[in-house]
Amino acid sequence: MASNKALEESLEILKGAKIDESIDMEAPEFKDFAKEMVDYIANYLENIRERRVLPEVSPGYLRPIIPDEAPIKPESWQAVMSDIERVIMPGVTHWHSPKFHAYFPTGNSYPAIVADMLSGAIACIGFSWIASPACTELEVVMLDWLGKMLDLPEEFLACSGGRGGGVIQGTASEATLVALLGAKAKKLQEVKKEHPDWEDSVILSKLVAYTSAQAHSSVERAGLLGGVRFRLVEPDENFQMRGEALEEAIKRDIEDGLIPFYAVVTLGTTSACTFDRLDECGPVGNRYGLWVHIDAAYAGSAFICPEYRHLMRGIETADSFNFNPHKWLLVNFDCSAMWLKDPTWLVNAFNVDPLYLKHEMQGSAPDYRHWQIPLGRRFRALKLWFVLRLYGIENLQAHIRRHCGFAKQFEGLVLKDPRFEIVAKVQMGLVCFRLKESNELNEQLLKSINSRGNVHMVPSKINGKYFLRMAVCSRFTVSEDMEYTWNEVKAATEETLANNKH
Amino acid sequence: MASNKALEESLEILKGAKIDESIDMEAPEFKDFAKEMVDYIANYLENIRERRVLPEVSPGYLRPIIPDEAPIKPESWQAVMSDIERVIMPGVTHWHSPKFHAYFPTGNSYPAIVADMLSGAIACIGFSWIASPACTELEVVMLDWLGKMLDLPEEFLACSGGRGGGVIQGTASEATLVALLGAKAKKLQEVKKEHPDWEDSVILSKLVAYTSAQAHSSVERAGLLGGVRFRLVEPDENFQMRGEALEEAIKRDIEDGLIPFYAVVTLGTTSACTFDRLDECGPVGNRYGLWVHIDAAYAGSAFICPEYRHLMRGIETADSFNFNPHKWLLVNFDCSAMWLKDPTWLVNAFNVDPLYLKHEMQGSAPDYRHWQIPLGRRFRALKLWFVLRLYGIENLQAHIRRHCGFAKQFEGLVLKDPRFEIVAKVQMGLVCFRLKESNELNEQLLKSINSRGNVHMVPSKINGKYFLRMAVCSRFTVSEDMEYTWNEVKAATEETLANNKH
Repeated sequence: MASNKALEESLEILKGAKIDESIDMEAPEFKDFAKEMVDYIANYLENIRERRVLPEVSPGYLRPIIPDEAPIKPESWQAVMSDIERVIMPGVTHWHSPKFHAYFPTGNSYPAIVADMLSGAIACIGFSWIASPACTELEVVMLDWLGKMLDLPEEFLACSGGRGGGVIQGTASEATLVALLGAKAKKLQEVKKEHPDWEDSVILSKLVAYTSAQAHSSVERAGLLGGVRFRLVEPDENFQMRGEALEEAIKRDIEDGLIPFYAVVTLGTTSACTFDRLDECGPVGNRYGLWVHIDAAYAGSAFICPEYRHLMRGIETADSFNFNPHKWLLVNFDCSAMWLKDPTWLVNAFNVDPLYLKHEMQGSAPDYRHWQIPLGRRFRALKLWFVLRLYGIENLQAHIRRHCGFAKQFEGLVLKDPRFEIVAKVQMGLVCFRLKESNELNEQLLKSINSRGNVHMVPSKINGKYFLRMAVCSRFTVSEDMEYTWNEVKAATEETLANNKH
Repeated sequence: MASNKALEESLEILKGAKIDESIDMEAPEFKDFAKEMVDYIANYLENIRERRVLPEVSPGYLRPIIPDEAPIKPESWQAVMSDIERVIMPGVTHWHSPKFHAYFPTGNSYPAIVADMLSGAIACIGFSWIASPACTELEVVMLDWLGKMLDLPEEFLACSGGRGGGVIQGTASEATLVALLGAKAKKLQEVKKEHPDWEDSVILSKLVAYTSAQAHSSVERAGLLGGVRFRLVEPDENFQMRGEALEEAIKRDIEDGLIPFYAVVTLGTTSACTFDRLDECGPVGNRYGLWVHIDAAYAGSAFICPEYRHLMRGIETADSFNFNPHKWLLVNFDCSAMWLKDPTWLVNAFNVDPLYLKHEMQGSAPDYRHWQIPLGRRFRALKLWFVLRLYGIENLQAHIRRHCGFAKQFEGLVLKDPRFEIVAKVQMGLVCFRLKESNELNEQLLKSINSRGNVHMVPSKINGKYFLRMAVCSRFTVSEDMEYTWNEVKAATEETLANNKH
């Protein structure tokens, strides 16, 4: 009887549901819309140079120019298309313009865009092997391809048949946090073995991680998120963390009863693209039982060129290595490549496996959900596959070398002007420079450059010295762009100096 | 002199860099490639029903069918296109097939795919307002649109002019973790105010979070990641967490000297889509000073239909609310919508602001990097904007109602067969059912269903009772699909019962 009542109720709801009325955009309409978007994209990117790189809008510009609420009835795709120029573009900072020199580059290429379209169509969630075997398996092999391109030690590669392997994380920040959590779990177990009577909270309160005072802010933030303290080691006069300084800090902490457990070595800092001495810091980390993680978010891409690999000497001492193909290797965000020699620390520490996620093939291929913070994951390996095949290693190397070349070209222009100085050795696609004047004047100079709006840069500061960062970011950059940017700097300099005479 | 030497060196590197040779795919080629992909996508999705929903490959299938290394020279896009059917498709689990009933749905729609193309072309990183004002501002307004569609209390909306507002996270797991970290920071400060002499590590070791024993595994995992314990509260006979049980657990812990700080209330569990009694648990959480977070990852989408909003009664007691438009609202992964009444806890607790990320407009619009775990972020609000406009509220409501209707239709088919029972009330697009037989027999039944390969489901278990989950997942589903799936279940049942007679 109960079941009959449920059935009636069920039929009632079913009637109201209008289950056979289609509500979706139809395929022919999608084709028109998507192809118009393809043309729009090509047009946007090929002519991106013509747009003002920094938008002129003020905070809050967007709300008044669109409705307060979502529409009840569907709109036409033509209406949406035409709002892109009206609503969106006035507020876009054009990261792919050759006039954009802020932060670091972020990847963008035609092959990656097309790969992402396919990823959006398949739209599987690859949290386990069975949830879409291709999604997991292509990722395993692509991380091997990429690892070989960087000449990573075999222990990091899945094809070695050992425990090691690679995974795509969303961002370098997540990779740093994931490695920290693995290191924490590992050290906790080690210490408990030695001191079975110590409580977890006591051990955790003694853990210390290390990184350079020049490391990216996300490293310190990983410590905040993971609830452990970071010791910021002072780098040398070339802004590199050295083995001796790291060792001293570790020794001091051990003397104070603390437990060193994790060190983040930066290859290519955000401030000035300097390189910690991995060949010194790695062995120190190993000697004191620390998990050594390498953050090469930006500069890691350069290691596909043999001539830059001397900067990663000591790589064999690392437990985990991370860089962002979505920065400098023409792969669209998000695609942060991370390799681990032994992912079991992660897998075991945070493994909560409910029945609905178990499957029969567990153990025969990685279930990547255990390797990362989120559960869900897109089919991101497609982007790597498309980019690596459609550029080929040679063109990707040429891309890196071109950017490094442009930086050298710009450095040459700066060096020829005696009013300026170069702040840090130019090794990759970043030039750090300043007027040989006060910080205040340099701040005014940057303000003047950005308010002219023709090129965009951001500043940094090391040891109290404020400077400007000119990052080569666009794949559309040609050598005339470097001259253009330098002329903008010079024009802004005249303005700034003139203003200061008054 | 030094500067001259650097200049010479620089010109040498520049020469080797071949900076004026183009290495990229050209725009006309991109247009051909992308438009062929558009046709491929439409063809794939419109005919997805014809494909075997579960792949037949074994682990390791992919490595032998592609090269061991990336190519040195670029390949043609035609070669890549033709490898999609050869390499990828045999290993794809077709989440958007009407025959896919595993887990929960994940979003996929033509408008979202086109929006993501645009996002890929703009490819800005929206970590601060200035890094691309449109990226931040569209997100603020879209979360307001969406919040209004759900009838969220004004305090959650940015347009209220208060502190509250929404943000797009990658996944519900991250939202749960972010809220937990905010709650931890808040409670830590409260307790330190009262007991200035207590050490952080002591306070942290006393913190306890609460959730239902039926909550998603990612909730427990957030506790592991965040380093705090979770108390799993036993739900009632309808699998709902009740206020009384929560209060008892809190009281017991307070008596034991612990500090309750965080409660996750689930609206629509993964196991059986049951709803915790927010109207009871929320007030309890408030009374004891807990941060109340709502995980409505799947079912939250249904609240755009007024007839389901009774299930979120008590919403005004929540500090944060999260659901995934990338599950049931036709937006492609990743797009997890989260609202906070007071994001300052997060912003202040994990704020590490280096100079290169500071900008003049700070404070006048949210800098979303402080609201999330990663630093980088895609322009994801475009997907929401396109989907909301191109479906309209009415069609999105119709989509939810259709799926709920299909579930009711399937429930009706199950109820008509006396060998079966329904395990949990069918309220959304999920039907939990089982043979009125042993767990073992039901396990065999599921195995038989999945190995037939025509439809795909996953199991769950509550209080020792194993059952099958039939989730309505595809936007292509029509009522005949429910009959097809039911016939597959019946055929597999015959097989299973026959095998068990021997």
